[in-house]
Amino acid sequence: MGVVEETEREELEGSDFVFAFPPEVRAAELRRQRLGVTHAAQRSPRDPQPGEPVALELTIGPDESRNRATVHWTSDGRDPEPGASTETPMELVDIEWDELVFGYVRRFRTELPGQPSGTVVRYRVKAHDATGETVSDEGRFFAYAVDEYEQPEWARDAVVYHVFVDRFNPGAGRDWNDASDDAPFYGGTLRGVTEKLDYIADLGVTAIWLSPIFPSPTYHGYDSTDLFDIEPRLGAKADLRELLDGAHARGLRVLLDFVPNHWSSRHPTFQAATSDPDSPYREWYVFRRWPDEYDSFLNLAPTLPQVNLRSPHARRHMLDAARHWLEFGVDGYRIDHTIGPTPDFWADLRLETRAARPDCWSFGESTLGSKFALTFEGLLDGSLDFELSDALRNTFALRRWDVARFASFLDAHERFFPQQFARPSFLDNHDMNRFLWSARLDHRRLRLAALCQFTLTGPPIVYYGTEVGLAQERDVRETSDKEARLPMLWDDEQDAELREYYKGLIRVRRERPELSRAGRTTLHADADLLVYARGELVVALNLAEEPRSWESLELPPLSGAVTEKGEPLWQA
Amino acid sequence: MGVVEETEREELEGSDFVFAFPPEVRAAELRRQRLGVTHAAQRSPRDPQPGEPVALELTIGPDESRNRATVHWTSDGRDPEPGASTETPMELVDIEWDELVFGYVRRFRTELPGQPSGTVVRYRVKAHDATGETVSDEGRFFAYAVDEYEQPEWARDAVVYHVFVDRFNPGAGRDWNDASDDAPFYGGTLRGVTEKLDYIADLGVTAIWLSPIFPSPTYHGYDSTDLFDIEPRLGAKADLRELLDGAHARGLRVLLDFVPNHWSSRHPTFQAATSDPDSPYREWYVFRRWPDEYDSFLNLAPTLPQVNLRSPHARRHMLDAARHWLEFGVDGYRIDHTIGPTPDFWADLRLETRAARPDCWSFGESTLGSKFALTFEGLLDGSLDFELSDALRNTFALRRWDVARFASFLDAHERFFPQQFARPSFLDNHDMNRFLWSARLDHRRLRLAALCQFTLTGPPIVYYGTEVGLAQERDVRETSDKEARLPMLWDDEQDAELREYYKGLIRVRRERPELSRAGRTTLHADADLLVYARGELVVALNLAEEPRSWESLELPPLSGAVTEKGEPLWQA
Repeated sequence: MGVVEETEREELEGSDFVFAFPPEVRAAELRRQRLGVTHAAQRSPRDPQPGEPVALELTIGPDESRNRATVHWTSDGRDPEPGASTETPMELVDIEWDELVFGYVRRFRTELPGQPSGTVVRYRVKAHDATGETVSDEGRFFAYAVDEYEQPEWARDAVVYHVFVDRFNPGAGRDWNDASDDAPFYGGTLRGVTEKLDYIADLGVTAIWLSPIFPSPTYHGYDSTDLFDIEPRLGAKADLRELLDGAHARGLRVLLDFVPNHWSSRHPTFQAATSDPDSPYREWYVFRRWPDEYDSFLNLAPTLPQVNLRSPHARRHMLDAARHWLEFGVDGYRIDHTIGPTPDFWADLRLETRAARPDCWSFGESTLGSKFALTFEGLLDGSLDFELSDALRNTFALRRWDVARFASFLDAHERFFPQQFARPSFLDNHDMNRFLWSARLDHRRLRLAALCQFTLTGPPIVYYGTEVGLAQERDVRETSDKEARLPMLWDDEQDAELREYYKGLIRVRRERPELSRAGRTTLHADADLLVYARGELVVALNLAEEPRSWESLELPPLSGAVTEKGEPLWQA
Repeated sequence: MGVVEETEREELEGSDFVFAFPPEVRAAELRRQRLGVTHAAQRSPRDPQPGEPVALELTIGPDESRNRATVHWTSDGRDPEPGASTETPMELVDIEWDELVFGYVRRFRTELPGQPSGTVVRYRVKAHDATGETVSDEGRFFAYAVDEYEQPEWARDAVVYHVFVDRFNPGAGRDWNDASDDAPFYGGTLRGVTEKLDYIADLGVTAIWLSPIFPSPTYHGYDSTDLFDIEPRLGAKADLRELLDGAHARGLRVLLDFVPNHWSSRHPTFQAATSDPDSPYREWYVFRRWPDEYDSFLNLAPTLPQVNLRSPHARRHMLDAARHWLEFGVDGYRIDHTIGPTPDFWADLRLETRAARPDCWSFGESTLGSKFALTFEGLLDGSLDFELSDALRNTFALRRWDVARFASFLDAHERFFPQQFARPSFLDNHDMNRFLWSARLDHRRLRLAALCQFTLTGPPIVYYGTEVGLAQERDVRETSDKEARLPMLWDDEQDAELREYYKGLIRVRRERPELSRAGRTTLHADADLLVYARGELVVALNLAEEPRSWESLELPPLSGAVTEKGEPLWQA
């Protein structure tokens, strides 16, 4: 498509992911963790098999006088309260000087005995001294599940199409609404999705992830009022049934967007909890001062009260909802905002969802970096690869990283995460600028980035419209996130050439399982050229504005290729 | 002495050590290290014995694309330049996600072969990729010495008296000068010290550390113009000879304050280097733009140009000076500002000083935290215990830490540092508020802190005047450091009771070698009461304003005791 004229917009620095925490916020949180009593879900192995002991770690920082540590734990499902739990002492194994907090951090460790399959081990970690005790991580409860579940086989080769329902297709012959900032409902529906299943299947993807479809006052649906029904604007249960049947008939799996952390302040339980001080629903929330001050999404959004998943009733309700839709026929979940809920929720969710559907696939949205994401191993099947997304965007769109830096990142990233923990990849999503727009509409950069994405291990996700040139007009940080959620382009609006490119890429991915499963070896990386091997395949990416060659391969400016024994299999 | 009325001064937050780096400066430096290519003198063992291989570590952070690492090293004294050195590849051993810089840090490691005694291994660590190489730590050269030197036996039981010469005693029947801010010379002299050797010996200490005595335009002398002579205001070589003879006759060792990092801009070599572009002394300094911009002390003090110890001639000069005074008869050095010089200087200094005087004792002033201080193991005999000083002041003077926190610090601190690395302890020095003043003149707190200091392992240092109630009038952060360097009190000005207390403490220390050598075990720590064992001795410190008891021991408010088998040996 050639280079489009660069827009005149100013280059904004920093991440354009809407929910990214700025460095000073992260540093403050890190200081807090290093100064205090912190477990941070550090267990080994992270995904314990039946009978396998599990080592737990704790650090006590210089702000804390506590000098002993214990784990209170149960394996019978009860909460690890004193009296109802076993208390296992931890051993001081290391002392390090922490340069950030300028003091000593003591590391404790202990091992809990192996358990039979199906056990949830619930625990709290505590630090003690003569003056009292401190529960780690500001009082948090933790849990892990002992089971033999693995990533479902179908998920390992998945290619996911990410549909933002209100913005995808009105269906039933209707046109888009005249949406406004006050009424930002464009009119996409489940039926609209169903009508486009042929389009989606024709792309070659294997799964659809639908943005939230439960009743909600907002167009995005991330604030539901009922986890057991369908938002009427989008359709009804029958429409979801039709969508699922149509998808399954075409070999497409369907994932729902599930939000256990919070829901709408119009949720009937919240209405009850805030209107009646004696409401049984009051414990479903954490009121700091009833009824006005309560925990909410990032503690920034009073319309999104956080659900207290430490309440057995609220937790049961959430697990029932997760089970309900699996039994209804969906194939898994993209789980929103996993940094929010109490850490002991995930083991229950794992056993509940797998019991309902053994080949359920669940991956989370976790945005606190790789170490945190990895704590979900053994609890979810994977975690959206925000770090790769950031790297791809910095390298291919924003040109902030040279290729050698990207290669170093990839080497480290792939070595850090175990193969069995899925890292679904994406170039863009509904919470950040479209990749194409960030690349100043240079389609060659989008093609190269997509070629890279589709030749790395993580199951690729395509955000609706990215495959047909959908872009935006202003930066999401200057405006609302609407810019990242503009209506899908259909028919002649679509960039057919780009779409065919995507279809080809998806086909190559599906035809060559080594692209999902083989190890990757960097063969060459310099400022502009990256070459790596996946099994018998070699991928070469030239980000220079001039031709480069690699062995017998000639690469035009800003181009890439997948080759097998020197023969091109696919070119960008 | 009872509680003196609290002054009305505002409590200033943070460290009152004049050269302490604020947390944001430390965090920025840490970020820089974690983002880039960093060795930071991480070797194991830190004090290699003959024949022992030495493992070296390197981290490469997310800002660096380099993905290979090597060590260039020599064992023949030459600089580790390409061609003249062996290049040993490092192995990638670990990848961690760094929460502070939000990216991957790769850890590399290799082992260099063992060497015979007397070898200096010089090395640089480099990171490489297809586009080039980066020398670690902004180009630094490192070195370690292979030898069998240990801490001299006399140093293990040392008690040091720290004399700030200009402020100690004029001598020869003269009175103090009328010092002013413009001419802050109070008139202390070497002869004045010699005249007070009986006083010093009577305290019971075993060594004297003299503040800098070489020619210098300033009263403090930390900016010399000649490392081979004596400042005329203080005396002449004959006076130092007399002082040394008198001290040695009384069994007192004498340590000089040695400043290898910088000297005065009036130093003749600097004058030559800045007046003549072809001066051979130009290489003795690092000019960023000749003659006006050059490296200096903390890059804040143009009157204190940094000596370029990478210059063979400047280095030889510095080593000759260190050797000169040892041959003259001094017993060792307190080494100023060890965070400044090139890291490959210390191995040379060690071999030079020990060759000149096998029982030389050298300890450094290092102010970048425990991890950095420990990199001097095997290069110096120890490091001034700034972390303990900070802890003692926070606990006993400023009441910012409760006793349990102090106990946790002590436990970690003693476990972190190996016994063979000396940690000379101090309650105050010339760069911070006097302890007594920080304790709002509460002598009980000073006595308790001193009791603690003298019953911990590190050789205690007593800053002149602290033993007789010398205090100050204003905070060093509000005024100049003059406040921490007021003239010594003599005769009737002295608090005789406090002096006798100190003498008793010193006697107990010297009579009971377990106080220098035995391990320490915390027996009890709560908010106010700390009890620990040193061999057969038990030390109990009650910081409460009310009586406390420990087993059969009754402790009045703000009191302490050393007991043996329940019998009091010493009380505060």
